[in-house]
Amino acid sequence: MRNVSTKTVGRLSQYRRIFMNLYAQGQTHVHSQQLADAAGMGAAQVRRDLMALEAVGTPAKGYPTAQVLEQLNDFFGVAEKQHLALAGVGNLGRALLAYLGERRPSTPIMAAFDADPEKTYKEIQGCTCYPVDWMEDLVEKFKITIAIIAVPGDAAQGVTDRFVTGGVRGILNFAPVPLRVPSDVYVEYLDITMLLDKVTYFAGNAQVPTSSDVES
Amino acid sequence: MRNVSTKTVGRLSQYRRIFMNLYAQGQTHVHSQQLADAAGMGAAQVRRDLMALEAVGTPAKGYPTAQVLEQLNDFFGVAEKQHLALAGVGNLGRALLAYLGERRPSTPIMAAFDADPEKTYKEIQGCTCYPVDWMEDLVEKFKITIAIIAVPGDAAQGVTDRFVTGGVRGILNFAPVPLRVPSDVYVEYLDITMLLDKVTYFAGNAQVPTSSDVES
Repeated sequence: MRNVSTKTVGRLSQYRRIFMNLYAQGQTHVHSQQLADAAGMGAAQVRRDLMALEAVGTPAKGYPTAQVLEQLNDFFGVAEKQHLALAGVGNLGRALLAYLGERRPSTPIMAAFDADPEKTYKEIQGCTCYPVDWMEDLVEKFKITIAIIAVPGDAAQGVTDRFVTGGVRGILNFAPVPLRVPSDVYVEYLDITMLLDKVTYFAGNAQVPTSSDVES
Repeated sequence: MRNVSTKTVGRLSQYRRIFMNLYAQGQTHVHSQQLADAAGMGAAQVRRDLMALEAVGTPAKGYPTAQVLEQLNDFFGVAEKQHLALAGVGNLGRALLAYLGERRPSTPIMAAFDADPEKTYKEIQGCTCYPVDWMEDLVEKFKITIAIIAVPGDAAQGVTDRFVTGGVRGILNFAPVPLRVPSDVYVEYLDITMLLDKVTYFAGNAQVPTSSDVES
């Protein structure tokens, strides 16, 4: 599976979570329609994605749960051996430490960083918080390749530069600013207030857009 | 500005934040290139969006900050008079109460709901937490039109149905499941673990996709 798009990877992540649940519930096979319902998309899309993954099902029984889950785990396998770090231990950062510790115990956050001396050298949600000045060195030492940024907007580029210098290759950015990174570093943006603005705008207007809407 | 797409609304939300900062810093005019740099997009895109908003700038001085900010505030005006509620006061819900209280003081969350009796009838981050059974009634009483869902996946559809019955028209959904809603209710999905899966996948692979990538 080469040159897979970000949207495909997102859907495969959804399928993996669904297959994990099915496996935990002891369901040995699943039809594409059930997957489609659980993922909120069309069955044809599910079949296309799983075909690209080289997963094989039968019309009578559907896809074998354990086997496809293994294929999905293989697909994300590289990812799960990677180490994470977090910059910014405010309300949001603290919640992310707790939330991800619960949801992704296989990929713990190895270090947190904060500019506030009150927070540093302490254990927060099971993770030690270090001063920002240590970032480059600790990121390299802990072989951290994934960073989560939960600092205020005006501090985001600074911690990004330190993460990238230390060896980070992928960033999940909660700060509401664009980040300048080298072309081989992947950034995913997650701007909560912007998404909430979108919801409030469309909730206040008669016209609700559908996913087929094009740019105006 | 009719039939505006979700992407356009997202960009206008970004511009509004930038104009608020410029205004607070006393900058009276701004060129499209400075806006483009701050928003991480092209200057032509910025000019197109602001033209659709009927904002007028001059080549010499750029856009007048105070005036365009007022136009952007008008655009989002309907939205800001709406009332919000939250379902799910776990780690993530608690952080959202604190984070949004700080970032969006003009639109406070009027009520929180949780199934855990330990949490109900208490004030959490300045917001009272009520039992789930009260949802329909309180959503209607408080005229709540926007809901934030931060409950586990298996509880998400249940609270969604209660919100919609009470009168909610827009939902920001942090639960990792698709929601069934009437066609006039707008849902924005925000699946943190899926986004992190995407980051870890692309950080672990040589090929980093660009925004021009198409579906595979």
